[in-house]
Amino acid sequence: MKGFQKLTSVDQALQLFLKAAPARKLNAETVVLPFALNRVLAEDVIADENLPRFDKSAVDGYAVRTEDTANASQFRPKTFALTEGKSVGRKQAVQVSTGNPMPEGSDAVAMLENAKRVEGGIEVWVALTPGANVSLKGEDVPKGKTVLEPGTRLGPYHLALIGALGRTKVKVYERPVVGVLATGNELTKIGHKLHPNQIFDTNRLMVSSMCFELGAEPLDLGIAGDDVEEIGCMLKEGLRKADAVITTGGTSVGEADLVPEVVGRIGKPGVVAHGVAMRPGMPTALAVVDGKPIVILSGNPVAAVVGFEFFARPLICRQLGLKGTELRPVVKARLTNRVTSALGRKTFVRVCVHWEGGELFARPVSARGSGAISTLTEANGYVVVAENREGLEEGETVSVSLFSSIVEAKVSV
Amino acid sequence: MKGFQKLTSVDQALQLFLKAAPARKLNAETVVLPFALNRVLAEDVIADENLPRFDKSAVDGYAVRTEDTANASQFRPKTFALTEGKSVGRKQAVQVSTGNPMPEGSDAVAMLENAKRVEGGIEVWVALTPGANVSLKGEDVPKGKTVLEPGTRLGPYHLALIGALGRTKVKVYERPVVGVLATGNELTKIGHKLHPNQIFDTNRLMVSSMCFELGAEPLDLGIAGDDVEEIGCMLKEGLRKADAVITTGGTSVGEADLVPEVVGRIGKPGVVAHGVAMRPGMPTALAVVDGKPIVILSGNPVAAVVGFEFFARPLICRQLGLKGTELRPVVKARLTNRVTSALGRKTFVRVCVHWEGGELFARPVSARGSGAISTLTEANGYVVVAENREGLEEGETVSVSLFSSIVEAKVSV
Repeated sequence: MKGFQKLTSVDQALQLFLKAAPARKLNAETVVLPFALNRVLAEDVIADENLPRFDKSAVDGYAVRTEDTANASQFRPKTFALTEGKSVGRKQAVQVSTGNPMPEGSDAVAMLENAKRVEGGIEVWVALTPGANVSLKGEDVPKGKTVLEPGTRLGPYHLALIGALGRTKVKVYERPVVGVLATGNELTKIGHKLHPNQIFDTNRLMVSSMCFELGAEPLDLGIAGDDVEEIGCMLKEGLRKADAVITTGGTSVGEADLVPEVVGRIGKPGVVAHGVAMRPGMPTALAVVDGKPIVILSGNPVAAVVGFEFFARPLICRQLGLKGTELRPVVKARLTNRVTSALGRKTFVRVCVHWEGGELFARPVSARGSGAISTLTEANGYVVVAENREGLEEGETVSVSLFSSIVEAKVSV
Repeated sequence: MKGFQKLTSVDQALQLFLKAAPARKLNAETVVLPFALNRVLAEDVIADENLPRFDKSAVDGYAVRTEDTANASQFRPKTFALTEGKSVGRKQAVQVSTGNPMPEGSDAVAMLENAKRVEGGIEVWVALTPGANVSLKGEDVPKGKTVLEPGTRLGPYHLALIGALGRTKVKVYERPVVGVLATGNELTKIGHKLHPNQIFDTNRLMVSSMCFELGAEPLDLGIAGDDVEEIGCMLKEGLRKADAVITTGGTSVGEADLVPEVVGRIGKPGVVAHGVAMRPGMPTALAVVDGKPIVILSGNPVAAVVGFEFFARPLICRQLGLKGTELRPVVKARLTNRVTSALGRKTFVRVCVHWEGGELFARPVSARGSGAISTLTEANGYVVVAENREGLEEGETVSVSLFSSIVEAKVSV
């Protein structure tokens, strides 16, 4: 039995891998704001203006001078003349909506509900302090403040903030290019003629989609047969063109460890971990060749997903330039059925999380084989059973990492 | 005080709105698989083949005939001749890797760890039952089974499953087109010259990005001034071109209710709710004109986000053809600070969720005004304070809806 004699823990394998893989040189590119969505910021965004730029009303109401509201009460309201101008004089008020600039001379706003229209003006029955119901200039973001730092994933709110500063463009990191290579004599391209004992290669599509979802740029390296020369040649091309390569197939607990073997031949340091104490995905291998990381996934789709989740995801997050690994959201749910697992292996259990009577339940859907991609489409998350546990009990509260949304059928918020 | 006299609850407003807005006619289009990522399935995907297509080994090991393993034990292992062929005869074994087709004549696989190489063959010390360690033809997906239903959001695993059935294309619903119109005399296009008391219009960019993130196609309708004719004209154009329209600004608790006013003029039934018992976002209005829904958001960015979250999100999920509303993932976290809220209002509190000592904490970041977009970029989720609560206590466990990932800096899984 070649390949590996002893298994490495998931944590240790990841550490070995990230330590051996040098950080990618992060180049920045400038993009216009709408296209910066979901990209990773490559610069400090510094406010060159105050936000808000001027004092403005924080409510709908009447801008007044606070001195004129002194001692106002419900029993002794103060009367103001309503004017239409841009400034407020003594005992004058100007109606303002939320966001309107404060009229000159005013220093507070009486809320609509604390005032009443009367013949020739309004009555106000609260005493205001200066700045009451006013958003002061620079209160949100003072001029000179660093509002966003490099390594931030830009969502809609970030774009709005950058736009509020008057900027139309922003520097983001170039997307890492991740080469995706499938290996196996049994593989046929999807839609091509399938010969007996052949299967369609779905791993390239799936792994490429997972890279794309994270914000990397997948590069299709095609399918290599189970041949050392062919794999070597295609892998080298991938390493030349891409920032990282992910392969599927050609790694096992047995003798068909073609990809790790090839990797060991084409460069240094080669394989840094092979054989991981997890299930599925035990044959996963991790390598670095000439400064480029290679994630060698099982050809088995579910095992490939698990290997991607534990190793490719942190790697890609780092290559994107993010401050750290973006974690899947974790929700607590009650397990509807018992689950078995092997002691000493981190076990990945696919579950479908759903609401029932105000409580979240997780139904295991991985009873069937690890090759069954349909168990992943039936699931919306996974539970990791720790190495020191032998299965999970029915009714136990578990932490579920969600990979797709929980869909709520009823109309409710 | 025009506009609205009494507030509608969030739940009731949403129900009124979705009831008044007719369901969009969902047209299907055919796309090739990689481009189906994140789209919504418009057909039943039925397996026209078994998956797997043939019996295959579920493990690395040796394919044998079970009858030859009868009574095998560690003390009395059975000996097999190792052959290289595609069939297994009596007392013969063929080495197989996970996923290999079962050699003719074999009906089970002895795992590597239950066998040992010996002179001229192998010894197996377990008695196997037929089908042991074999993925049987059709076991994952039997021919004829409906594996995916319309209304499913397609992720990487779904694409892999569809591809495994040999399909290169799939029918998805056309994306809904959502027109986005900003209103307000104070608005200037981002990057243009800003006159005194003007602000950059960031809401169009933000709302468009939020629509895009959900999978809708945003249509830019531009900026309308605070003018009934202009708003009416641009709104009508939007209703003609788009499946729904979202506006920002021109709605208030006071007198500047231009957009609801215009909507009431241009078609039936017009405004179905105006003034929602929530904070921020109270001036939000919901309307339907000639069968097209209109979400009228506050011009205040944070209030616009809240209105979008509660009303535009469920609407767009429905217009996408999803089975229901995709919920934000909800995590439980301990509140680090007290939060105040008004009784009778659903209050939206922005929080930043982070791990500390193995526990999730939520730090409120909405101390400042609701106009402060920076409070959203500092946050990664929100807590909703129910109408019947007056604030939340420090240390209280709250449910946080996440709108971006929790980033884990340390290397760990």
